[in-house]
Amino acid sequence: MAMPSDQAGPGPWILVEDPWGRVEPESSRRLLLVAIEAFADQGYHATTTRDIATRAGMSPAALYVHYPSKAALLARISGVGHEVALALVQQAIDGAPDPLSRLRAVVAGFAAWHAEHHRVARVVHYELTALPEPDRAAIVELRRRIEQLVEEQISAGVAAGQMQVAHPRRVARAVLSLGVDVARWYHPTGPDSPSAIGALYADLAARMVGAGDLPE
Amino acid sequence: MAMPSDQAGPGPWILVEDPWGRVEPESSRRLLLVAIEAFADQGYHATTTRDIATRAGMSPAALYVHYPSKAALLARISGVGHEVALALVQQAIDGAPDPLSRLRAVVAGFAAWHAEHHRVARVVHYELTALPEPDRAAIVELRRRIEQLVEEQISAGVAAGQMQVAHPRRVARAVLSLGVDVARWYHPTGPDSPSAIGALYADLAARMVGAGDLPE
Repeated sequence: MAMPSDQAGPGPWILVEDPWGRVEPESSRRLLLVAIEAFADQGYHATTTRDIATRAGMSPAALYVHYPSKAALLARISGVGHEVALALVQQAIDGAPDPLSRLRAVVAGFAAWHAEHHRVARVVHYELTALPEPDRAAIVELRRRIEQLVEEQISAGVAAGQMQVAHPRRVARAVLSLGVDVARWYHPTGPDSPSAIGALYADLAARMVGAGDLPE
Repeated sequence: MAMPSDQAGPGPWILVEDPWGRVEPESSRRLLLVAIEAFADQGYHATTTRDIATRAGMSPAALYVHYPSKAALLARISGVGHEVALALVQQAIDGAPDPLSRLRAVVAGFAAWHAEHHRVARVVHYELTALPEPDRAAIVELRRRIEQLVEEQISAGVAAGQMQVAHPRRVARAVLSLGVDVARWYHPTGPDSPSAIGALYADLAARMVGAGDLPE
């Protein structure tokens, strides 16, 4: 298949490669990182705040200075993860000149990010129901905005005659599903790099919206 | 978009609508069903055998007559789930006359099954790493066979000039991802029925392999 168009460049996800750099102070960031590992290894429900504090080399009391509860840690992880995903989608759209190039850049970046950050992505996607309100509502709203941005590119592509899609909202969801599910099966030791997965999935998304090229 | 071809009929998944009917005796089946609910609600790691026994109205000792451990319950759930999925894929292939019709029937059935049985599918897909060996190896082998059957249809479609795909194995994985991820987002109260999702995803898969129709 064809490689993604040059507009996608080396991948917009490079700009957000360390999504946790924004979390300050350092001890707060360290707790998030070990909480991701604990939730990914043991599952959210079976992890205690003591497990997380121990992994971070801190006392439970020191953990509570930063986060009042385990749910607060999950909410922060999910919040940062979704904000980064939304920023990545927005950057991909802003950096490309037309609906099809935008869709390709979004899908390439979204799929590559889910490969690169597969452990945090699993926590974020699979533990959504564990979030208390109002955190859950805030995350659902971020997800809705991501889906809406993708739907808008598809609707614009249809209007411009670039794409042929009867149900832009449903196809937007399916296109994002491809990227989300990368986090489930991806292994860093496998044959495919995150950027190679992104390139292939951009091609598949172009075909899904009726705008694909023939294979080379 | 076009509806799936008539060969797909009302959907091969109807034949396996009660995947647990094969589990005997009844108390053994009841334990599996309540274990699925417990794992889906609380997560596998946070569920105890006592929780499961209580939900089934049984004593922990009575549970152990049927299953020696919580892991044995998960292994049985995952085993039945994957065997049913493999049977569904094989039936779809056997019931259709050419590679594209077979791929469409597989995708329609697989996606509809993941909608209909979204709770068990979440347990089966997300708790794979919790399975002890040799159960895990057996499940991985069932998954490999499902992926291989889909890959074979794509390779046959390419050879017959029906499809245009450079990497059949990778595209087979992506096509199955679409169906798997339905289990994550599906809500029974949403606007799309399992069979409508199956029909749309068969169309999308046809496009992904370079054999799609224009929308109606």
